[in-house]
Amino acid sequence: MPGQSESFVYVGKKPLMSYVLAAVMQINAESREVVIKARGQAISRAVDVAEVLRSKFVPNAVVKDIRISTETLTREDGSPSKVSSIEITLFRGEDRGPAPKT
Amino acid sequence: MPGQSESFVYVGKKPLMSYVLAAVMQINAESREVVIKARGQAISRAVDVAEVLRSKFVPNAVVKDIRISTETLTREDGSPSKVSSIEITLFRGEDRGPAPKT
Repeated sequence: MPGQSESFVYVGKKPLMSYVLAAVMQINAESREVVIKARGQAISRAVDVAEVLRSKFVPNAVVKDIRISTETLTREDGSPSKVSSIEITLFRGEDRGPAPKT
Repeated sequence: MPGQSESFVYVGKKPLMSYVLAAVMQINAESREVVIKARGQAISRAVDVAEVLRSKFVPNAVVKDIRISTETLTREDGSPSKVSSIEITLFRGEDRGPAPKT
């Protein structure tokens, strides 16, 4: 969409928490949104990133959209290689106010 | 939903095509629908199953829903273990009629 800032986190082979923390920073920014992307074997890890973010760091995050597709990469010898990919869009819902003072 | 038949394919460590063919049979049945489920490392393979089904076998299949969640399993020693899971629901759209005779 025009004017919309897109905040991606590409998940690869680094430790899980490095992607979780990058995604937490993005979703806590003004756009309130982060798109977690991964290809091939890293797809499982992208789901882990989304689930850890929701359960441990941003409880009011909701899954806004999940898309799967097939990308065509080029191998070192120049031949094409098809690989599955995923895009998980998380959105940060309304913040709850501070707990009432008692 | 009441009365709805649920047709699951659980993706594990068998060869990819065994899951693809199971899913093709389900989506070609009366319900026109198949739910592809997987946990942990098999999540990437579940996306492969959906993508191969769509691109090679059932071109009028569409992704109806994708859900991610966290399941708690019990290890052999009785301690709990959390694992990410995915459910991909594919729906078979209207069949195109036979090609017109010329």
